[in-house]
Amino acid sequence: MSSAKTLDGKGAGEAIRELLRPRIAAFRVASGRSPGLGILLAGNDGGSQIYVRNKVHACEELGIVVDLRRLSEDSTVEQVTSVVNSLNRDESIDAILVQSPLPAGMGAEAEKEVFNVIDPGKDVDGFCAVNVGRLAQNRSTLAPATPSGIIELLDRSKIQIQGAHAVIIGRSDIVGKPMAMLMLHRHATVTICHSRTQDLAMVTSRADILISAVGHPGLVIPKFVKPGSTVIDVGTTRVTDRRQVSAIFGEESPRLEVLDRRGAVVVGDVHPGVASVAGAVTPVPGGVGPLTIAMLLSNTVKAAETRLT
Amino acid sequence: MSSAKTLDGKGAGEAIRELLRPRIAAFRVASGRSPGLGILLAGNDGGSQIYVRNKVHACEELGIVVDLRRLSEDSTVEQVTSVVNSLNRDESIDAILVQSPLPAGMGAEAEKEVFNVIDPGKDVDGFCAVNVGRLAQNRSTLAPATPSGIIELLDRSKIQIQGAHAVIIGRSDIVGKPMAMLMLHRHATVTICHSRTQDLAMVTSRADILISAVGHPGLVIPKFVKPGSTVIDVGTTRVTDRRQVSAIFGEESPRLEVLDRRGAVVVGDVHPGVASVAGAVTPVPGGVGPLTIAMLLSNTVKAAETRLT
Repeated sequence: MSSAKTLDGKGAGEAIRELLRPRIAAFRVASGRSPGLGILLAGNDGGSQIYVRNKVHACEELGIVVDLRRLSEDSTVEQVTSVVNSLNRDESIDAILVQSPLPAGMGAEAEKEVFNVIDPGKDVDGFCAVNVGRLAQNRSTLAPATPSGIIELLDRSKIQIQGAHAVIIGRSDIVGKPMAMLMLHRHATVTICHSRTQDLAMVTSRADILISAVGHPGLVIPKFVKPGSTVIDVGTTRVTDRRQVSAIFGEESPRLEVLDRRGAVVVGDVHPGVASVAGAVTPVPGGVGPLTIAMLLSNTVKAAETRLT
Repeated sequence: MSSAKTLDGKGAGEAIRELLRPRIAAFRVASGRSPGLGILLAGNDGGSQIYVRNKVHACEELGIVVDLRRLSEDSTVEQVTSVVNSLNRDESIDAILVQSPLPAGMGAEAEKEVFNVIDPGKDVDGFCAVNVGRLAQNRSTLAPATPSGIIELLDRSKIQIQGAHAVIIGRSDIVGKPMAMLMLHRHATVTICHSRTQDLAMVTSRADILISAVGHPGLVIPKFVKPGSTVIDVGTTRVTDRRQVSAIFGEESPRLEVLDRRGAVVVGDVHPGVASVAGAVTPVPGGVGPLTIAMLLSNTVKAAETRLT
């Protein structure tokens, strides 16, 4: 049934990391220190704990020094801002990451407020307004990690972007909108869909490259997909409901075993049936995730190199 | 033959200006002075001379004070920057506009460099990186005038944006990209096309709202257009070739008389034949142009009010 090629995000992520090793070594020679990443983690969000742990491990493995600052669930925007400012001033810190989401108690605007306090030269996620603007103007150096990683994966998989019709489901500041800008600058025709899109399946079925980033498990079913197209799955939803997992993957799926053992499985936006229609798909896990981490490392090194010059 | 409704940009522009009068009066009472717009015009571009003259007249008519600074064709980026800085510091100036294009001799990056020197609070065109980023994040106060004017025109014409498929031809920083963001935030599904788009007519023929901003006279012919849709023409190309005008408008067109009398006519991207297919169209001239000026005035007043608070 499955005919689509699986795009190997893990392998691509490893290849990107290997290319960073000599650059980090050269930076160390030139600066007398290792690149430094400041990470601010506020609150107890379970996903965030895991993501930050993975990021810290990946940095340490490459020789990037991490300064991890933790704040409690009930900390204030002022406290977060104050930590960001101290990282801005710290000469040994080249890049700063504020783990999203911030605790809900800080209010809906807290993230944008905090992102805008980060020194644009250290804004490793590219989320502050001036870097968002520079990305739109095609002058970015630090572009958001997930969409940058997707471009890397397409390039490494020799999937042509120029002239392709790229359809993006999701319009977030973190994935959807910067993805649209990166695709546009690579000369794709770009369509952005979202919850208010009428007849979503018809719109997405015209995509040569379809990117789903909404966190709706199994949303993208075969009729959403143009035969032979490339489907990129950015969704990573933690599912604990056995019925939902078996409805998507079938009663025989080994994922049910994983669910029984761990209490949850991570499920993408793309239904497994899509593999019989698409030309190429990214797996979840092992697709976009490893690339996001690799691009975070890459942006950290880039920020360090830029500060040196 | 013509069945489409003509959207009255001139009338909408006048209505917007009328709403500004009491706000300007209130600003004058509160501040003891009139709102001030600084305009920098460098070089001898013929179109720019006309645009700036129109902007100055529109301001004066409303009681906005204009400080027009002219620089010669051979002036440098440093000279332009220095004038912008003096306008930034001037307490009586609420808004600053650097007329595009800057002289070619300044280099391709000159405009972005200069735009980024403008105080973001006075950046009336919304072209500096931080305002571009704020627009993408849906936090903008000063959004670019042409796309803002198009939103105003659609709203005043009771054309629904939410759920519509908006297709934009052109990906400029001044129209295409900010138009995409404004449409997206109003819950349209958005497609951006450009010179590398494959089978342009097929992509555009799916649009409920089609916006062309490329400056290619008569590009949008009937087969580009979905029956009953709204077609917005941002093109304003000065055409001097009689054959080109008669090929687009026919041998009997009164435009040929205008051409003979004035030596040129302004022609939009949309072919007149589209009026027999579309539900609504904007004329050129008298469509988007008057709205662009009205939104410039509106942004100037908004910037002045914001500085007061």
